[in-house]
Amino acid sequence: MVRAYAATAPKAPLAPIDFDPGPVGPEQVDLNVVHCGICHSDLSMGDNAWGFTTYPFVPGHEIVGTVAAVGSSVKHLKPGQTVGVGWFTHSCGICRACVAGDRNLCATAEQTIIGRHGGFATRVRAGADWVFPLPKGIEPASAGPLFCAGITVFNPIIQCGVKPTDRVGVIGIGGLGHLALKFLNKWGCDVTAFTSNPSKRDEVLRLGAHRAVSSKDSEAMKAIRGSLDFLISTVDVPLDWPAILETLGPRGRLHVVGAVLDPIPVPAMSLILGQRSVSGSPTGSPATMGSMLDFCARHQIAPLVEHFPLSKVNEAMAHLRAGKARYRIVLDNDLK
Amino acid sequence: MVRAYAATAPKAPLAPIDFDPGPVGPEQVDLNVVHCGICHSDLSMGDNAWGFTTYPFVPGHEIVGTVAAVGSSVKHLKPGQTVGVGWFTHSCGICRACVAGDRNLCATAEQTIIGRHGGFATRVRAGADWVFPLPKGIEPASAGPLFCAGITVFNPIIQCGVKPTDRVGVIGIGGLGHLALKFLNKWGCDVTAFTSNPSKRDEVLRLGAHRAVSSKDSEAMKAIRGSLDFLISTVDVPLDWPAILETLGPRGRLHVVGAVLDPIPVPAMSLILGQRSVSGSPTGSPATMGSMLDFCARHQIAPLVEHFPLSKVNEAMAHLRAGKARYRIVLDNDLK
Repeated sequence: MVRAYAATAPKAPLAPIDFDPGPVGPEQVDLNVVHCGICHSDLSMGDNAWGFTTYPFVPGHEIVGTVAAVGSSVKHLKPGQTVGVGWFTHSCGICRACVAGDRNLCATAEQTIIGRHGGFATRVRAGADWVFPLPKGIEPASAGPLFCAGITVFNPIIQCGVKPTDRVGVIGIGGLGHLALKFLNKWGCDVTAFTSNPSKRDEVLRLGAHRAVSSKDSEAMKAIRGSLDFLISTVDVPLDWPAILETLGPRGRLHVVGAVLDPIPVPAMSLILGQRSVSGSPTGSPATMGSMLDFCARHQIAPLVEHFPLSKVNEAMAHLRAGKARYRIVLDNDLK
Repeated sequence: MVRAYAATAPKAPLAPIDFDPGPVGPEQVDLNVVHCGICHSDLSMGDNAWGFTTYPFVPGHEIVGTVAAVGSSVKHLKPGQTVGVGWFTHSCGICRACVAGDRNLCATAEQTIIGRHGGFATRVRAGADWVFPLPKGIEPASAGPLFCAGITVFNPIIQCGVKPTDRVGVIGIGGLGHLALKFLNKWGCDVTAFTSNPSKRDEVLRLGAHRAVSSKDSEAMKAIRGSLDFLISTVDVPLDWPAILETLGPRGRLHVVGAVLDPIPVPAMSLILGQRSVSGSPTGSPATMGSMLDFCARHQIAPLVEHFPLSKVNEAMAHLRAGKARYRIVLDNDLK
């Protein structure tokens, strides 16, 4: 039996449940969960903010664990190995996106916490195609957030062709944003952090930013007009998007990974005159996941995390909801 | 003296004026205007729709003429040569965009009909950097619209890396859209024309589309959900943008060249889930202009035009304003 923490209704506290996952399929892997990060989308899903949560709902999709069992067709993983699992747990492998390498864009991809149970549990199941061995140099205790927060901001650097000569900006310095600063600094870019929280202004410099700007400071925003090549937004609240677009130079791009619910009002003229673009992406493909893990190992990039025991998951969730996480919470499995 | 047709106030009819342009500068060229297309932005500027028109206002930025005089530093053009001029007449040549080849993104570029007199005239002046000799195989009488309408829809094909294997769509089949259909057909793409005008449905197939869809037909829109790689919008009126975005497949891109004034509401989730993007661009660089002219000559691509004598410019403008142009109007200089 698997013991997991589940919500039975929107915003209900998480409580233990036990369930039998049945036998592992030929292309599946079972993990003993050791650590699991908490992502803001665990909160959103728990609250049914996107309207498709099913209950009981077990959050958790930044999982680090050891392989407990592998299906009969799985050749590249073996019991005992330390691995990570993120937002996806299976892609079909045969659609146009999958065969192009974009298993993260597979329309029928299985998602770890949608219609199935996630990683706030003693054990979790995943398709072998989305299970990644941790390379040497990656610390398991802080690695969980790489598998969602990390890949979500690393993937755009690859997909958008960000160059080390680029002047880039990161909007929102939280779980995703702090990793974006670390990645982009090591990528060789000139990095501006956008944060409206004055208490974070010094810290963003230590995280890799070369300067901090408040997007609510209209003078500061005016001073950097037309200066940026690439901007990644991690926030899920509406901002003054037209003003943000104006910080982009010719060919500049605003890339959103934060699931803001209100449509972004994009002035066509702002796109046309500067040949600008606005884009988005989900977490990355398995190939990009591999590149990210290698890059992290080479540059000693790790998430900044706070630890809570899994048994105190409700305290941890409250800490995140209060905006107090610096910068990501990792639950350590103390259930057995 | 130059004789030109000018408006003295928003929506006023055009009337002849005479002016002395002064001596040609060392890096400038004077053209005897032979033909000049009418672009929708000549109307918008005449109406002061964008708020920065200066009067008297002489429209015209799809100019074909013969070189009348060249400045002392101009080596690559000579009197008598047949040339074209479009939206831009000068770029600084030294800013970051210019030295990167993007003279069309130069922040201080001089624009043919902004704060200076355009091509509805016997003569027009331009910087030699934006004057293009017509290659063999390009018919001067219909070439004018290539220099604005044409390059505006050809440039995105280059900038966005459209591939012959792509499934593409063109929204709005007018002066720009009909050329986009011709270009994309010869580019080797699968081409869908979006038009809400039933009278154009057969014609778009002759222009190069493989099928026509009305964006107002929700069943037809649903049938092509997720199928397109690239969409170019030439319209300047608001559409159901979220529904249009849903026609894009993974990595799909909506590219706007039509100067719609209402911001485009872009749902972040629509960008994120499919790794989609929304972008825009102005007319192309001199290098792209050269590529377009070569491509047109090789594939016998020419704008479909209706001719009016320059002396009947007000009738021509009324014809355009009534939405009757099929697909571009060219004024022929009958003033001398």
